[in-house]
Amino acid sequence: MGAMLPFAATRGTPDDSLRGYCLPLSPSGLSSMVPPPPWHFSGDALWVTCRVRPEAAAAFLPAGLRPGPDPGAAAIGFFDWQWCTESGAELLDPMRAQFRECMIALDCLLGDRPVARVPYAWVDSAVPLVRGFVQGMPKLFGSVWLTRGFPVGKAAPRRARGGTFTGTLSAGGRRVLSATVTLAEGVDGPPPLADRPLVHTRHFPAWDPADAPLEELVMAATSGTEFAAIWRGPAELAFADVADPDLATLAPVEVGPGYLFSYAETLAPGRRVRT
Amino acid sequence: MGAMLPFAATRGTPDDSLRGYCLPLSPSGLSSMVPPPPWHFSGDALWVTCRVRPEAAAAFLPAGLRPGPDPGAAAIGFFDWQWCTESGAELLDPMRAQFRECMIALDCLLGDRPVARVPYAWVDSAVPLVRGFVQGMPKLFGSVWLTRGFPVGKAAPRRARGGTFTGTLSAGGRRVLSATVTLAEGVDGPPPLADRPLVHTRHFPAWDPADAPLEELVMAATSGTEFAAIWRGPAELAFADVADPDLATLAPVEVGPGYLFSYAETLAPGRRVRT
Amino acid sequence: MGAMLPFAATRGTPDDSLRGYCLPLSPSGLSSMVPPPPWHFSGDALWVTCRVRPEAAAAFLPAGLRPGPDPGAAAIGFFDWQWCTESGAELLDPMRAQFRECMIALDCLLGDRPVARVPYAWVDSAVPLVRGFVQGMPKLFGSVWLTRGFPVGKAAPRRARGGTFTGTLSAGGRRVLSATVTLAEGVDGPPPLADRPLVHTRHFPAWDPADAPLEELVMAATSGTEFAAIWRGPAELAFADVADPDLATLAPVEVGPGYLFSYAETLAPGRRVRT
Amino acid sequence: MGAMLPFAATRGTPDDSLRGYCLPLSPSGLSSMVPPPPWHFSGDALWVTCRVRPEAAAAFLPAGLRPGPDPGAAAIGFFDWQWCTESGAELLDPMRAQFRECMIALDCLLGDRPVARVPYAWVDSAVPLVRGFVQGMPKLFGSVWLTRGFPVGKAAPRRARGGTFTGTLSAGGRRVLSATVTLAEGVDGPPPLADRPLVHTRHFPAWDPADAPLEELVMAATSGTEFAAIWRGPAELAFADVADPDLATLAPVEVGPGYLFSYAETLAPGRRVRT
Repeated sequence: MGAMLPFAATRGTPDDSLRGYCLPLSPSGLSSMVPPPPWHFSGDALWVTCRVRPEAAAAFLPAGLRPGPDPGAAAIGFFDWQWCTESGAELLDPMRAQFRECMIALDCLLGDRPVARVPYAWVDSAVPLVRGFVQGMPKLFGSVWLTRGFPVGKAAPRRARGGTFTGTLSAGGRRVLSATVTLAEGVDGPPPLADRPLVHTRHFPAWDPADAPLEELVMAATSGTEFAAIWRGPAELAFADVADPDLATLAPVEVGPGYLFSYAETLAPGRRVRT
Repeated sequence: MGAMLPFAATRGTPDDSLRGYCLPLSPSGLSSMVPPPPWHFSGDALWVTCRVRPEAAAAFLPAGLRPGPDPGAAAIGFFDWQWCTESGAELLDPMRAQFRECMIALDCLLGDRPVARVPYAWVDSAVPLVRGFVQGMPKLFGSVWLTRGFPVGKAAPRRARGGTFTGTLSAGGRRVLSATVTLAEGVDGPPPLADRPLVHTRHFPAWDPADAPLEELVMAATSGTEFAAIWRGPAELAFADVADPDLATLAPVEVGPGYLFSYAETLAPGRRVRT
Repeated sequence: MGAMLPFAATRGTPDDSLRGYCLPLSPSGLSSMVPPPPWHFSGDALWVTCRVRPEAAAAFLPAGLRPGPDPGAAAIGFFDWQWCTESGAELLDPMRAQFRECMIALDCLLGDRPVARVPYAWVDSAVPLVRGFVQGMPKLFGSVWLTRGFPVGKAAPRRARGGTFTGTLSAGGRRVLSATVTLAEGVDGPPPLADRPLVHTRHFPAWDPADAPLEELVMAATSGTEFAAIWRGPAELAFADVADPDLATLAPVEVGPGYLFSYAETLAPGRRVRT
Repeated sequence: MGAMLPFAATRGTPDDSLRGYCLPLSPSGLSSMVPPPPWHFSGDALWVTCRVRPEAAAAFLPAGLRPGPDPGAAAIGFFDWQWCTESGAELLDPMRAQFRECMIALDCLLGDRPVARVPYAWVDSAVPLVRGFVQGMPKLFGSVWLTRGFPVGKAAPRRARGGTFTGTLSAGGRRVLSATVTLAEGVDGPPPLADRPLVHTRHFPAWDPADAPLEELVMAATSGTEFAAIWRGPAELAFADVADPDLATLAPVEVGPGYLFSYAETLAPGRRVRT
């Protein structure tokens, strides 16, 4: 092969005969594993505020983010999600539309703006996992479960005082995290860190040895954010003795209040963040 | 069915050194895969009334059950369940407590009493499947999904007029059933067939060639039955060209109204049914 | 165990209109979740001899079995199985035919005959799990994995000196067991305990309060047993800090040689064991 | 936000505080979901040659590839894989190391060089799926099964004359493909298309609206390719009535011989291909 053109000149000339928001590309573009944004999400969340070691949190912040005034402030969330595109077609195929997620969120600043950074997340479904890759949200594959509330019977807590809700995460056949919240009071506003914009790093490995990886700090264009039926109460958190040494550094050292709430948002691509 | 000899006389003396409601037996009895009853259930249901060919339905009724005044009346239900024992311990391990189920229910009579017969059911979890065996409810392994309602956002129908809910069943990597209901109005009473006691056949193969299988017609002792938030609307139902020739005979020939509701019950062993 | 009344006299007249080896019963009998025996099995096995605390092993032996001359001798096996009925039809649907299994086997005596008792087993597929129930083999649901040998490439050990094979078991999202064997030499005969007939307890809970559970000590009619390509070598075994207190008592206290071999057998119902 | 720098200038400045071949990035780089190449693969393959409609195949070729002298020549492969990195660590965790794959391969030319293009592939595991994204191999999530050969017993075909091997693919709870090959004779060389270098399109969506997607035609640096124990025989292929209209165009119109073989290769990043 002959001389190579600079990266910028060879990218950005899409091949119009094959289309798709992402792979697989196909003549119509409909085979794309992840359909084009915007993506709508509705769900229930169990959210446990906690503290991790400040130096461990700081080690996970990229250039452009810095610790906030409360270093080590963090939260761990468990979500029961349903998503769809603008057409809502996915809601007719609930196997496609539903997934569960667990994430760790670290309190930080982008300039002077309070934001959050997600060093690790887990989902139990392939399309959300790949969509995470596209957004810069680092999703691993995991098994996530969250107690359901139902309005009747003895086999469900109620979203009311005394209701006890548990979230669990396993990955690779091993337990990673679990959290239990016993609801004490309803609250009005979003839980701490739950309404922070997320600042991610999109990272795509290079293939040709002459190239560098694609890497950029980004934020999404998030709209339609709704919090509903927010309850708070004391929480317990268990973080297993995990094999990943970097994840292990984020084992919480203190547990704060936990929350249960319903949540919705619409996610679309946003912008690259200038440091 | 004629008079029966007491069971206890035939099976010798249970071995007290090993205990358990079912296998695995162990010194304490705590290893039992299915914990002892009673079992509490809470959940959401999508329930589609339909008609199957009356002769096909009748062919699935055992001695002791006969077609009702509306032969062929049936329903197909999809459930999002959470269960627990009296202690509620399972609710702290939602992976254990949650499962989804699909069932076919056939209208029939036990003597003069309107009941229902379940020729086929599917669950996506092992403990409910084995508990089905114990109860006489014929549960196969399947992949069941049911649209969730959430109170916020665009990625969830509401349990209100116009809300559209879909249930799907796949087994063995093939689609079996799907149903969609578009809610039109709230209703007060339980949907047709949804409140019928179920009459099952417990059947356990023999092992020694001198023995006959254990087979008995049974009903459960069901209590604490609650229906809530019941909505009704037009339904669509799709039944695949399935490989099982007997299941294929139950392909619905007519679809009636569909329903969405929340439900709870407590299930315990009941009685052998004498005809 | 004393004399038993014939089973057939107690369970009345089976209902001929509905057939099936087990549930679901149907007009033709073809819907039965488990097809009728005999069942053929072929597979690869990783087998680690070990010792458990003799008193713990003895506590898992029912009346009729007693510890052998080497109390506490045991083995843990991991299997990659493929099964079929006489017709071989299942082999055309490998999703149905394949499963993996892990079992614990305890050395014991039935009278003067060396046999083995399986207190716990795990499988990753529903039909083998229910078939276990029918046989009296106590199978729980688990996630079992076993290193494959392939004849080419760097991503597979060879079944030769130095080849390293690992088996793992997780259940309920938690790691339970793992074992690694590094092959040292080929051997001629079956590994210790691997060729022992298994003596199980079939146990089916009662439903009517007047009844006792079905419980009987049984053996299968096993034929066509073949061992091939048997290798042995030093083994490592890790047994997690499991939640089940009875299972926890069986944590091995010593690890012996491990083995890798291919195996086949045909399993059919056998007989109730009279002591 | 202010003026944007040209794409080339803002990418390629990796943030050294966070490392990883791909997400999740972490201080040590060890949290990366996909470990860095090279990646070694060993496995068994079922490979069915076939023909698709030439115009359908041509529609899936990007600029830079053109139909070969036998337009429409294609193959469908089912694989039982085990993979590892240079250290072989993954082989000690077979849950991580094993996956199954199904792919469609289309015969084409890169300039004058016979190559193959994969329009669709499916895997049953997250790490291989994301690694596919990185390579440009369009992997969807699916359930893939392949009959195993074992050397003993009735529940396994032999890799010998008469042995019958089946591969199946389901995705989204629906059957997509199945193929059965009955072995007739051993052959010496690689099956048609099985030894072709693959030419993929890496495609990563843009996030900032000012950017274009990353898109490049690439080949891997493949080494250590081995074929062993190659058998051939008549094949049957069933392609379901799939929902994806583009995938549907590739339904084979003719089935050729099928093959069973063992295979190994080492895969590493290669080069961007100049058109």
